Amino acid sequence: MVRAQFSAETAGSGEFVRQPNRFTGRVTADSDSPPGGGPDAQGRWPLEAGRYRLIWCRACPWAHRARIVRGLLGLDDVISLGTVDPIRDERGWRFTLDRDGRDPVLGIRYLAEAYHTTDPGYTGRVTVPALVDTVTGQVVTNDYPQLTLDLSTEWRRLHAPGAPDLYPAALRPELDALMAEIHRDVNNGVYRCGFATSQAAYDAAFRALFARLDALSDRLADRRYLMGDAITEADVRLFTTLVRFDAAYHGHFKCNRQKLTELPVLWAYARDLYQTPGFGDTVDFDHIKRHYYGTHHAINPTQIVPLGPDESGWTTPHGRG
Amino acid sequence: MVRAQFSAETAGSGEFVRQPNRFTGRVTADSDSPPGGGPDAQGRWPLEAGRYRLIWCRACPWAHRARIVRGLLGLDDVISLGTVDPIRDERGWRFTLDRDGRDPVLGIRYLAEAYHTTDPGYTGRVTVPALVDTVTGQVVTNDYPQLTLDLSTEWRRLHAPGAPDLYPAALRPELDALMAEIHRDVNNGVYRCGFATSQAAYDAAFRALFARLDALSDRLADRRYLMGDAITEADVRLFTTLVRFDAAYHGHFKCNRQKLTELPVLWAYARDLYQTPGFGDTVDFDHIKRHYYGTHHAINPTQIVPLGPDESGWTTPHGRG
Repeated sequence: MVRAQFSAETAGSGEFVRQPNRFTGRVTADSDSPPGGGPDAQGRWPLEAGRYRLIWCRACPWAHRARIVRGLLGLDDVISLGTVDPIRDERGWRFTLDRDGRDPVLGIRYLAEAYHTTDPGYTGRVTVPALVDTVTGQVVTNDYPQLTLDLSTEWRRLHAPGAPDLYPAALRPELDALMAEIHRDVNNGVYRCGFATSQAAYDAAFRALFARLDALSDRLADRRYLMGDAITEADVRLFTTLVRFDAAYHGHFKCNRQKLTELPVLWAYARDLYQTPGFGDTVDFDHIKRHYYGTHHAINPTQIVPLGPDESGWTTPHGRG
Repeated sequence: MVRAQFSAETAGSGEFVRQPNRFTGRVTADSDSPPGGGPDAQGRWPLEAGRYRLIWCRACPWAHRARIVRGLLGLDDVISLGTVDPIRDERGWRFTLDRDGRDPVLGIRYLAEAYHTTDPGYTGRVTVPALVDTVTGQVVTNDYPQLTLDLSTEWRRLHAPGAPDLYPAALRPELDALMAEIHRDVNNGVYRCGFATSQAAYDAAFRALFARLDALSDRLADRRYLMGDAITEADVRLFTTLVRFDAAYHGHFKCNRQKLTELPVLWAYARDLYQTPGFGDTVDFDHIKRHYYGTHHAINPTQIVPLGPDESGWTTPHGRG
């Protein structure tokens, strides 16, 4: 059934083409902001502490971004967090980690229920992250790239004092271009390797992935973070793929020119972030491995989850301080 | 169909149990040797230069042993060599690398034809290596562990001058015990990881494999080869698994605690052998990867062959001279 899900996202050439994000509402800070598709008179979702709930899966790199950004900005007490099981069944993401198998705030057993509350006719794949409005039970957004940028900008009034600026206005042209390359070749590139159904589609994705990783290694050779001395949204986006690389993508998605541990600059960079509060403390290698190996039947029919890799290296000194 | 082949070798516990070798004839040197199940009056296969043909597949570690031993002993002009395609079809190993798809000496298109000439009722899996008698067209043996030992002992009269003694009489008790451990935990251990159909069977095989590799690393830390200063049969047997480790077993069989390249002693040891005449010059990473990834549909249904790993490290200095 998972195979059927993904086969709807496979082009005739055997290339994986990710579905568009269905819900693109935005919580907005003030009347200068664009309409958010929400319920108020201006079509906006109002900015309110305690109103929204972020649904994530510890295994999912797209959801992991939102979890990290929320923490870095000090929004942990502003946006509550619901966590789905890393193993989907045929109805998708489940709240089986919670008592009685229901999210304690939303009262639902499947994230799909919130999707159908919002769009009764929805038939696509149910994805995380999803920002859900606890008042209406509707999904505000599952548009992960906009969600984290909005946390940095529209939600600024609710940030903790001294929160970093992860999306600095002056850097946006370069930052946006860099993130677009990282998305195409790395974040989504590993999926294009793993879900390719033709050798040609795989080969192209593999070459683009490692060419981009080489370019990023060069870029990071003489600067601590992608944009210089401070962490930005681009680092968060690269990290959530790198931290899954050896545990899942190297073997399961055949991204195997080298392991991350064999790419010295990127490996030190990834450890540096891992050891930064808000990054490594949100990583769950067990959920990551069980999700990838356990639910992609089309590429791992036995569902056996590898015991490797040895993860002890993540806490070793990185030398980038 | 490949899956069906292997499912006949899966126990109820999900453990892979390799089928016994069907043909156990032995070419013997003299009347003191045990009967070999052959055609002469004493039931022996006579030792003759030019009479037998070794059928191997470049991908197969069991066949690779015989190819290496034959070369080390200087038997290349004594025993001819036939090479099957790394990709099997439903009839098994094929001579599709040869002109017209037939072995030029035996005249057969499938190795199964020699099996059926020898035993018309054979229904098991057709395996390499196979030593085939060119006079009768029969398979003398597919019993790979005995075959290489016989090349070292029974075939001694035909060895090249100065050929090494790969199976020294004085070392046999220790050597036999060591090779039994290597077979169980490493040579066949990687298959027990890869073909396990239950998590418990996989976990047990994985732990035994890496415990054995750790013990072998300790053993090789202060000696160049497994039995000391000279290469023996045990080194050949360990090498044919190690050389396939990162290319196939690490990802495809989930033997992923570390790559070989991350195990310093074993990696240097394997490079030392690779750079020894008769070893690396018989390795074909392309055949290895196409065979493993292309024919085990039950664990790689897409049949996509990874572009990695980077193999350039094999020719770097090993520092064990």
